[in-house]
Amino acid sequence: MTLTMRAVEVQDDESLKIVDLPRPEPKGAEVLVKVHAFGVNRGDLLQRKGMYPSPKGASPLMGLEACGVVEAVGPEADRWSVGDKVCALLPGGGYASYAVADAGSCLPLPEGCDFEQGASLTETMMTVWTNVFDVCALKPGETFLVHGGTSGIGVSAIQMAKQWGCKVLTTAGTPEKCVAAKTVGADVAINYKTEDFVEVVKAEGGVDVILDMVGGDYVAKNIESLNKLGRMVNIAYMQGPKVELNLMPFMLKRLTMTGSTLRARTPAEKRHVRDGVERDFWGMIAADKINPVVYKVFPMEEIEAAHALMASSEHIGKIVVTTGA
Amino acid sequence: MTLTMRAVEVQDDESLKIVDLPRPEPKGAEVLVKVHAFGVNRGDLLQRKGMYPSPKGASPLMGLEACGVVEAVGPEADRWSVGDKVCALLPGGGYASYAVADAGSCLPLPEGCDFEQGASLTETMMTVWTNVFDVCALKPGETFLVHGGTSGIGVSAIQMAKQWGCKVLTTAGTPEKCVAAKTVGADVAINYKTEDFVEVVKAEGGVDVILDMVGGDYVAKNIESLNKLGRMVNIAYMQGPKVELNLMPFMLKRLTMTGSTLRARTPAEKRHVRDGVERDFWGMIAADKINPVVYKVFPMEEIEAAHALMASSEHIGKIVVTTGA
Repeated sequence: MTLTMRAVEVQDDESLKIVDLPRPEPKGAEVLVKVHAFGVNRGDLLQRKGMYPSPKGASPLMGLEACGVVEAVGPEADRWSVGDKVCALLPGGGYASYAVADAGSCLPLPEGCDFEQGASLTETMMTVWTNVFDVCALKPGETFLVHGGTSGIGVSAIQMAKQWGCKVLTTAGTPEKCVAAKTVGADVAINYKTEDFVEVVKAEGGVDVILDMVGGDYVAKNIESLNKLGRMVNIAYMQGPKVELNLMPFMLKRLTMTGSTLRARTPAEKRHVRDGVERDFWGMIAADKINPVVYKVFPMEEIEAAHALMASSEHIGKIVVTTGA
Repeated sequence: MTLTMRAVEVQDDESLKIVDLPRPEPKGAEVLVKVHAFGVNRGDLLQRKGMYPSPKGASPLMGLEACGVVEAVGPEADRWSVGDKVCALLPGGGYASYAVADAGSCLPLPEGCDFEQGASLTETMMTVWTNVFDVCALKPGETFLVHGGTSGIGVSAIQMAKQWGCKVLTTAGTPEKCVAAKTVGADVAINYKTEDFVEVVKAEGGVDVILDMVGGDYVAKNIESLNKLGRMVNIAYMQGPKVELNLMPFMLKRLTMTGSTLRARTPAEKRHVRDGVERDFWGMIAADKINPVVYKVFPMEEIEAAHALMASSEHIGKIVVTTGA
């Protein structure tokens, strides 16, 4: 008898449907997680449209992070035992009542967090750590700018950089979002619809590291905003990747520009990121120094509403879905 | 009585004239070097046209590197004594029979090298080390591409990367230059006038690090040539810094682009570079593993001919000038 699970499947017309599918089995270094809640990420909307498929070998379902209880353990999986509560980064497959995760992509559910909160942490904290703290090597005392300060990435990046001892600037699109960004810790929140962020950044003395997901004409503006030896990293190009640039500041200010995706990385690369997040930041959650920011929780039956909210960009923080498991 | 020196001065009509000027005195951590020979660099041609002035506080004369004998030592200068033969990186002032250099910007003249050879090493080896080995962290076993393989930078970069255990690709503009680039150690030399370098690089399996001084449409081609986690660094934009780019490969291949100048750095930053070159490569010169490549030596009276040769780009390796000191 094949065990089944409930899962959100994309139909040919791009609508979403909850269906019964065979439950995956943990192979090699994987663990099987009974998913209580999963996080919604902007990439899910792209995947739904066929533009951001799962990497080879991963579940074709949407879902980059999940939180739940370990139900079974693969023969080569380290650290985890049946019954452990975990937050898991996934290459796909989180939109289901069961998912397999590499053991090296899992973190323990922090004390004091429920499953919904746990589902809001992994993707953003790993993304911020690898880009801002590992690749761009943000140092205490430096100044940091993250665009989209009330996105899931934004609220994580602001809190992590503040805890790291940095001055934090951010951009957001409404006065309410600017207030929210300051509430989670930003020193300066710039309403990009009414202010030129470059001017404000320069008045604040420039920035050393920028985390950007906007692209387009923000790239040239970021270059202008960076101090000597500044670094910028793109995790998306929401306004497009095609740009016209004058690169001379790269020489004169010795700037560095880079970018990355997390999803396509190898299990070993993700383990490195998991270890970094755990070492530098994970304990701050139970200590109430970094707080999950869950904007709204939907039951899986309302997945369409969860996606509509993500598309609207009206949320502040993370959108989470519960499976009913 | 003021001591004097002979120096090359740029006249109002951009012509060059040998004049008598007051000899500089070593202050602070500086040493005074009696210059026997100095290297000609492409930046000198820009400075002559008023486009690349010396940094504040430095000699307004041209000359980024010189080789000679320590004649006097400033009160805070470490390591050097009167009579030491040194190769000095300079922020300016090398086109003269005396120059002051920061003690931390000097290296000992390698055994077996004459002053002309010593004058050909410092600027290129420090530039290559800081960009390729420090910032881009080229690792043994990786593949490296340097454009302009027969320039002063090119012949240094090829030799240093080969000694580091890398596969080395380069570009050059004539069959003769391609032969010369292979003679100094390049595994693959691409004639960019008859071959598409991107195609050749891809057929060779791509590259991990690129040292570029061309800019312009080479930037997009470099992006195409880089492997996953590839790094590129610009030390000039001879074809201009304005580019149209699709940045998506920065995310998908996790590329890094940076750039730098050496001249404007602080003495402490240059000391770091000097120490790196000395630790990793300087001993290889006396050991005949890295060889100075001096294309032609001019007496100072023929400085116009030396500049004309640099402008022609017909040289292979370095152009050196002797002061007659």
